[in-house]
Amino acid sequence: MTPSPSIDELIDALKRLPGLGPRSASRIAYQLLSEDRTQALNLAQALEKAVKTVRHCLMCNTLTDSDLCPICSDKGRDATKLCVVESPADQRVIEETLAYDGLYFVLMGLISPVEGIGAHELHLDRLIERVQSDQSLKEVLIATPFTPQGDATAHFIAKVLSSRRKDIRISRLARGIPAGVELEYIDANTIASAIFARKS
Amino acid sequence: MTPSPSIDELIDALKRLPGLGPRSASRIAYQLLSEDRTQALNLAQALEKAVKTVRHCLMCNTLTDSDLCPICSDKGRDATKLCVVESPADQRVIEETLAYDGLYFVLMGLISPVEGIGAHELHLDRLIERVQSDQSLKEVLIATPFTPQGDATAHFIAKVLSSRRKDIRISRLARGIPAGVELEYIDANTIASAIFARKS
Repeated sequence: MTPSPSIDELIDALKRLPGLGPRSASRIAYQLLSEDRTQALNLAQALEKAVKTVRHCLMCNTLTDSDLCPICSDKGRDATKLCVVESPADQRVIEETLAYDGLYFVLMGLISPVEGIGAHELHLDRLIERVQSDQSLKEVLIATPFTPQGDATAHFIAKVLSSRRKDIRISRLARGIPAGVELEYIDANTIASAIFARKS
Repeated sequence: MTPSPSIDELIDALKRLPGLGPRSASRIAYQLLSEDRTQALNLAQALEKAVKTVRHCLMCNTLTDSDLCPICSDKGRDATKLCVVESPADQRVIEETLAYDGLYFVLMGLISPVEGIGAHELHLDRLIERVQSDQSLKEVLIATPFTPQGDATAHFIAKVLSSRRKDIRISRLARGIPAGVELEYIDANTIASAIFARKS
């Protein structure tokens, strides 16, 4: 039996969100349809507004409300550093650390030959052109994840950029053991990197 | 830094959904704002349609698109049995078992003196009146969960209904060990119930 088509459609739309299974989708749907439905309308309005408003920053490619995102238009940021990240979510996480004050370039993906995503799809020409033309730039920090795609992307970017400009430092996030995770859940490569990079 | 107010508002609205933390909310928001945004618009439309359309079934109180839900209007259901559940989600789960072919009454909550939810808030008068007046009814199966609130609600309903009608069976779901769960994660009361109700 189907309780009603419009509930089913809502559960179906929620089920397609990343990380939600049928059970959590139905739980969320019924909560949204409980006595106070302003929450459901707020979510619908937030979705429609964001779909209409949000675009890519002309400078760093992140998702933002305006032509230039708040970071790119902030004159207080250190313009000698450029951090290359996979997604706006990764950028957000790095911003939350307060440990980085430079600019960003957001790839909106990673190189993945299997999925047909190459340098062109990631707008890497824009990144390369920016690094070549912006002489104030002194360091590119590649913050892609330590996955096969993240490694391939980092390798490709490092190779191209270092061939174009000899005078900049190209770095990558340090690999090691994260806080709060048992060693037995960490892969051998990461542990080996942490041993080589051990600190006294 | 905030990347843009409309992304923040969307993440904020998603964060309020049950079971979603800030990380999963931002992951979902960025996926909804990725290249193909029809998914976001579909969700917004499904929300608005459901908020407008969905109401309580006049008979069983579940959430549905019409005045009478598909189960209450189905003449093929066994009208001698009435199953009392906490929520439309619980009703859905019971329907999925295909083990029950009777009718339902959906409480939309449980008795909880701490939260100020009593018999009146749960429309228990409607349930009592229905059981009193519907002489074809022979059994009420109380399917509230085995929690303090679920127990209190079951106890209250059983007491009131048995005082009004001596000729109906009032039952509750069997308590026992669910499939696929290690015994060490099951509480002592449940194991004790399973021992007393053991089968040869």
